[in-house]
Amino acid sequence: MDYEGYFADRLSGLKNEGRYRVFADLERQVGEFPKALNHRDGKAHDVTIWCSNDYLGMGTHQVVLDAMAEAVRSNGAGAGGTRNISGTNHYHVLLEDELASWCQKDAALLFTSGYVANMTTLMTLGAQIPELVIFSDSDNHNSMIEGIRHSRAAKEIFRHNDIAHLESLLAKYPKEHPKMIAFESVYSMEGDIAPIKEICDLAEKYNAMTYLDEVHAVGMYGLTGSGVAERDGQLDRITIYQATMGKAIGVVGGFIAGSSSVVDFVRSFGAGFIFTTSLPPAVAAAALASVRFLKEHNELRVRHQERAQTVIRRLREVGLPVMNTVSHIVPLMVGDAARCKMASDLLLQRHNIYVQPINYPTVPKGTERLRITATPLHTDAHIDHLVHALIDVWQYLGIERQAAA
Amino acid sequence: MDYEGYFADRLSGLKNEGRYRVFADLERQVGEFPKALNHRDGKAHDVTIWCSNDYLGMGTHQVVLDAMAEAVRSNGAGAGGTRNISGTNHYHVLLEDELASWCQKDAALLFTSGYVANMTTLMTLGAQIPELVIFSDSDNHNSMIEGIRHSRAAKEIFRHNDIAHLESLLAKYPKEHPKMIAFESVYSMEGDIAPIKEICDLAEKYNAMTYLDEVHAVGMYGLTGSGVAERDGQLDRITIYQATMGKAIGVVGGFIAGSSSVVDFVRSFGAGFIFTTSLPPAVAAAALASVRFLKEHNELRVRHQERAQTVIRRLREVGLPVMNTVSHIVPLMVGDAARCKMASDLLLQRHNIYVQPINYPTVPKGTERLRITATPLHTDAHIDHLVHALIDVWQYLGIERQAAA
Repeated sequence: MDYEGYFADRLSGLKNEGRYRVFADLERQVGEFPKALNHRDGKAHDVTIWCSNDYLGMGTHQVVLDAMAEAVRSNGAGAGGTRNISGTNHYHVLLEDELASWCQKDAALLFTSGYVANMTTLMTLGAQIPELVIFSDSDNHNSMIEGIRHSRAAKEIFRHNDIAHLESLLAKYPKEHPKMIAFESVYSMEGDIAPIKEICDLAEKYNAMTYLDEVHAVGMYGLTGSGVAERDGQLDRITIYQATMGKAIGVVGGFIAGSSSVVDFVRSFGAGFIFTTSLPPAVAAAALASVRFLKEHNELRVRHQERAQTVIRRLREVGLPVMNTVSHIVPLMVGDAARCKMASDLLLQRHNIYVQPINYPTVPKGTERLRITATPLHTDAHIDHLVHALIDVWQYLGIERQAAA
Repeated sequence: MDYEGYFADRLSGLKNEGRYRVFADLERQVGEFPKALNHRDGKAHDVTIWCSNDYLGMGTHQVVLDAMAEAVRSNGAGAGGTRNISGTNHYHVLLEDELASWCQKDAALLFTSGYVANMTTLMTLGAQIPELVIFSDSDNHNSMIEGIRHSRAAKEIFRHNDIAHLESLLAKYPKEHPKMIAFESVYSMEGDIAPIKEICDLAEKYNAMTYLDEVHAVGMYGLTGSGVAERDGQLDRITIYQATMGKAIGVVGGFIAGSSSVVDFVRSFGAGFIFTTSLPPAVAAAALASVRFLKEHNELRVRHQERAQTVIRRLREVGLPVMNTVSHIVPLMVGDAARCKMASDLLLQRHNIYVQPINYPTVPKGTERLRITATPLHTDAHIDHLVHALIDVWQYLGIERQAAA
């Protein structure tokens, strides 16, 4: 076999489909967010970022940076080992305590990423609990799908956020049969939100565990910011809460929270937890400072929602096709990979606005979109600029706008 | 099903087998390594760490810390997104260039950990290359095993470092059949080293790709420190080089290096790469500074090997059972989970020496051991202390020492 030829062919295929990914080379600048430098064509260009998952700007917040730099100075760079072999740092212990209390649970467990948290936890539970059936929302994130798939547990896929369909699947099994319902609160590419209470009602009725991914909600919903389950008063009904520290918390890493037993079980049997170097002490220190800040500053969440609503309103006013979001996520439908990439390129080149095109496999083919995220740091002037730039790009590409909504 | 009862039962099982893991809560102290604080029983104890994978002490090296703190101040805490969606930072680009050139390859790709690098790359290649057979060393790390397993590619396991067995398996397939040999250079729990040249000879003869994990060698072998393949003059024969930035480099994260095509292929199709927040800019900056330093400072590697050899010699002189290592890793056989844990506890309580017990599933049952790692920062006085402490613990536990070697 000609290996190099095979790789080159497959890459050509991606290019022909218009979905070959080119990464924007960015240089973040503390104090300037949502502006950043974009290195391209040998030059550094000023751009405004409209697609960051640093949803609240905590990634450049001084409280977080001070904690991180201080921990670098005192504790150094890396942790030096796996959690078991010399890699547990005191900041990990403090952060796990803080996260557990934030999520109103007994215990929490850190992972190197939200991806690894989902994959490891679902793989471990799926593989270790005899006969477990996992009921999985059809729009769940890749990390959940992979975790469930590789656990080789039996699975039932329920139609996205469809309670009636979920119940029909649960009812197929005796009440005593081990079950877990795995779902997200905010779905990050559509911006819709799960009916958490109704899902918990079903879990109770059919004796299922609940596994809730709050990756795109943590920090942003609920009075203290632990997510939509907090907002909806359902936290105590969630068996396993999962989230990331790489989005609204502004750092990196993932975690789960739950009862002491379930967390200790994943700690003790989860390969993706056991066999990996732990997060740097300074990362844990930064996340700890960020969570403590977020708990106390609900006004950041209020401002964030207001900014997102303003963007949605302004875009709809000029007939731009904002999808049916009920969260802070503002997806703008394009529906074609090549045109979506072109819209993104034009925004960057003509307007210094950076919004990455979202294509397959992140979203289904034919639903390619621009996914816009507003932060509390986007001003009215930034929004004006975005609206005018999008009008220009739609015109340039000859896409008709809808009647103003 | 009673879920909580099930978890509690399984955890009791671990406790009864003596292999329930208790993490040592450490506080690293810049300037004091290999000493650190150990938080236990509500107090902070001074301990000497003898089991760190921060093999060269770069995790507290001032060059690394300065780069990390400076990047925190300029670029902030987190990257703010996946590599594709606003999360590529200029430090990622610079680091990938540096790593590629270090490994004498066209390109490199960062992952959130070495675990994810192995898992994602092997899963992607195994799942995407039709008919690929993966020939895997029987002692490969869990992250490689999981990657191969979940790729669902055909696999052949060859006996650890056994060239004749590997050849007999390769010969079963026509030369044209797609093949990849996956192995490590330094095996971290035994301290032995793969016959890289002989494996590459077979790969050439049977037209197989080579996948080499240098996680426990990177930074420590070869004139510029990129690993054993560099030392042995075999780097150009390795198709995919994989390593971590969490051990001798002293930070966190993983990477692969290879031809532009194979790296772009994994970048484009690897779910565990695509769907995860990228490493913080400051982590990339710290790793970049560390790699640049390591390339230029071979004397650190010379000192490291000398320290390891001194520990081996000193332990053998007093009849302590050092296993047959040919690397910097010093495994001391105990052979029983409970006794191994007890030895570790006694070292900590009686001597303020921290060496974590290594038990199943990290090593096979019945081969539980203390795994000692010397760094360039361990002095002769530290070694004296270790030797006397081990003699005392062996005596306390009533384990006979061997005749002096």
